[in-house]
Amino acid sequence: MDIAMIHGQIVPIKELDPVYLDRGTFFGDGVYEVVRSYDGRLFALDQHLERFSRSLREIDIHGVHISDIRKKVQMAHEQASIANAKVYFHITRGSEHRSHAGGKSLKPNFFLTVTELADDTSRKQHGIAVSTYPDLRWKRCDIKSLNLLPNVLARRDAQKKGCDEAVLVDQRGDITEGAGSAFFMVLTQEKKLITRPLGQQILDSITRRIVLEIAEKTGLTVMQKPITPWQADWADELFIAVTTQDIVPVTKFEGEKIAHGKVGDYTKKLMKAFKEEVKARNAGR
Amino acid sequence: MDIAMIHGQIVPIKELDPVYLDRGTFFGDGVYEVVRSYDGRLFALDQHLERFSRSLREIDIHGVHISDIRKKVQMAHEQASIANAKVYFHITRGSEHRSHAGGKSLKPNFFLTVTELADDTSRKQHGIAVSTYPDLRWKRCDIKSLNLLPNVLARRDAQKKGCDEAVLVDQRGDITEGAGSAFFMVLTQEKKLITRPLGQQILDSITRRIVLEIAEKTGLTVMQKPITPWQADWADELFIAVTTQDIVPVTKFEGEKIAHGKVGDYTKKLMKAFKEEVKARNAGR
Repeated sequence: MDIAMIHGQIVPIKELDPVYLDRGTFFGDGVYEVVRSYDGRLFALDQHLERFSRSLREIDIHGVHISDIRKKVQMAHEQASIANAKVYFHITRGSEHRSHAGGKSLKPNFFLTVTELADDTSRKQHGIAVSTYPDLRWKRCDIKSLNLLPNVLARRDAQKKGCDEAVLVDQRGDITEGAGSAFFMVLTQEKKLITRPLGQQILDSITRRIVLEIAEKTGLTVMQKPITPWQADWADELFIAVTTQDIVPVTKFEGEKIAHGKVGDYTKKLMKAFKEEVKARNAGR
Repeated sequence: MDIAMIHGQIVPIKELDPVYLDRGTFFGDGVYEVVRSYDGRLFALDQHLERFSRSLREIDIHGVHISDIRKKVQMAHEQASIANAKVYFHITRGSEHRSHAGGKSLKPNFFLTVTELADDTSRKQHGIAVSTYPDLRWKRCDIKSLNLLPNVLARRDAQKKGCDEAVLVDQRGDITEGAGSAFFMVLTQEKKLITRPLGQQILDSITRRIVLEIAEKTGLTVMQKPITPWQADWADELFIAVTTQDIVPVTKFEGEKIAHGKVGDYTKKLMKAFKEEVKARNAGR
């Protein structure tokens, strides 16, 4: 008889809760999004849903109605009633006996959480420390998939070094992005904001898009080109961008202080401009 | 209040079954093994457990006793009472609110299934068709991890082309391995068995090891070097090796017949030698 073992107990496979046969666990066969709210309003939901829809398409999961996902996200966010919430959701290809290709009758599984965002004032005021780690990820990091083990290993390495984020370095020696964030460098003399151009090696980060949009307001010109760790070490300012915390200054890179360990002026300006962007969007512009 | 949504229903996160917070699903943060039995006896269990132990170590999961895993595998296999069984098992870093690095108090989750192996006589007698697909995987394919989305995409592509397996091709244009198997080529004139050497790009397949051990008995000399799709197209014989079916002849490669679409003589000899190896091991040699 076909059986499974959960919590040390033998059960017939037929009686198993389908969650144990989720292709998300067997293969990481799914995609996800993280959206946040500011003051009770979901931020950039359209862009996140659009990216989610693209991710689904890219891994050949069909039949998901984005309007339905939108309703679920909005409904759950409302019910949670948290002013500054993090909404995580994923869709996997479905539950089934394990087989790589998967059967014809698979029905996607949807899962969502809404949790309160921790107050990140200290990180924003004092900045974070960042380490580097080899980019071991797959060749389609433009897809926001559940295959995140290399990101986990990078972040664990960072943690061991007393750092908050790991910046990934590809085989050419260029920084791709953070294990869970986009990465930026500011050259104050040149008034340049530099970040890696989009491609299959990095995620089309929504926060990155907004940072690039608001950069001009602070007097910075955007340059999209790869950055090496050596260049980052010598940068005037560094920061990361991530949905849950928008802009977070980096004041230590590979153990070296950046801008004397202080949050740079342009980074402060960008954080302020981002806040205004949030307010403008929340007010419906 | 922190909440989750499962099956369209809102539940407080605190009341959620920990299986929904498995890092296996969030990150593919775990490793697995597949062992099979022949005539009621588990085959090469020691080697599989040794590799499993290495995989755990490589992704920094500690505190798992392999002797305990061995007992569980043996016990479950016995209880299932299937002569030719496939035993799948994985360990994930544990269940917890989603965070890349993971907390200090995580306790690994173990999951196992024992299922009956389908009779593969037809595949062995007539061979299978194989397609090629870009190797999009991460840079540590020597670790048998749950990050298998690129393998899934490759196998789905193969299925659409009417093929049973996809052979992965790296950026240099060399074949690494199959989406779920090792890959071999035979040159009959030269009496050579060729397969890619081990490294971080392929799995140290247990079945591959045994094939290399028994090759000499069939008069073949082993050469470990990369194979291009072009070379495979012109090969005298091709086959794949995988735990669940040991040696499976490839009679069609990228739409072209191999050895006039027939199972080659050396492949037949290797299949026979593999059978004898199984018998010898089962008899305790």
